[in-house]
Amino acid sequence: MTKKPFPLDKVYTLIEPGPILMVTTRFGNRPNIMTMSWHTMIDFLPPLVGLVIGDQSHTFRALKATGECVINIPTAPLIKKAVRCGNVSGRSVDKFKAFRLTPVKAAEVKAPMIGECCASLECRTVDQGMAERYNLFILEVVKAWADSRIKNPRMIHHRGKDLFAISGKTLRIASGMK
Amino acid sequence: MTKKPFPLDKVYTLIEPGPILMVTTRFGNRPNIMTMSWHTMIDFLPPLVGLVIGDQSHTFRALKATGECVINIPTAPLIKKAVRCGNVSGRSVDKFKAFRLTPVKAAEVKAPMIGECCASLECRTVDQGMAERYNLFILEVVKAWADSRIKNPRMIHHRGKDLFAISGKTLRIASGMK
Repeated sequence: MTKKPFPLDKVYTLIEPGPILMVTTRFGNRPNIMTMSWHTMIDFLPPLVGLVIGDQSHTFRALKATGECVINIPTAPLIKKAVRCGNVSGRSVDKFKAFRLTPVKAAEVKAPMIGECCASLECRTVDQGMAERYNLFILEVVKAWADSRIKNPRMIHHRGKDLFAISGKTLRIASGMK
Repeated sequence: MTKKPFPLDKVYTLIEPGPILMVTTRFGNRPNIMTMSWHTMIDFLPPLVGLVIGDQSHTFRALKATGECVINIPTAPLIKKAVRCGNVSGRSVDKFKAFRLTPVKAAEVKAPMIGECCASLECRTVDQGMAERYNLFILEVVKAWADSRIKNPRMIHHRGKDLFAISGKTLRIASGMK
């Protein structure tokens, strides 16, 4: 794996642009992957992330039961595998094997990281109070990893059904934003 | 304004890619604009959106008091104005005048739309229960508008501080996703 530890106070720079994410869990000793794109930063430090996870999914049950996951960020070369991971349920398929993705042991949680993703954020749920009503989990990122060689990752953004946009040129504009 | 009514069940295709948003409010008869990028879809129909709004901002107070806003989506040509809107507080500046943006009367809420944005979503808060703890408002989109001539809007994605990425090429990949 080419990822190195990444500072927690910079985690928002990975989530805030709104890329599709590959969320990994381990439940009953089975690793699983879900591709999703309903998420938001909630706070900078400790970094809190909100994930909206369909309540019929294997990942919803795994997250509710274990309180742990890894948020992995795929870039353009992974787009086909990421989409295919979103098309089948982890109940019947080991997606790491089916799509030839590399599970890498995480440091703080039992869910595996995906070796091929440019960044991986190890998370624990801190608030499941909105899981029933809104399918919304609040997670704290407890350890982060990123490939420091990739300065401007070509993230994947979902525009509904079969349409995806790849992040294009970057601009620097003086901003008072964090 | 070149925007036309836009179907509510397609609203997620505008929010899900994770662009920066320009949120407009009207509070005490003063219109205001805030640029932000911590948001997520929560449900498809009626479309529910979660916005995380800093609790020191004018927009936080306006949204709490009025329960109404418009989510406007800027595209690449508006990037400088969008960033400048994020750099000053609406307490002291009328941003529509200062940045020469056109307020357009909305149909369902008192907050104005921004004429220059490619899409505008009129919203009402449906749950402010997480506003104190997480600065999180759950809003229902009650009326949507979009410029139907723009097929693949060049959205703006924030990567922290001065760095922005413009959405680039689009791809179609067979997906079971909604």
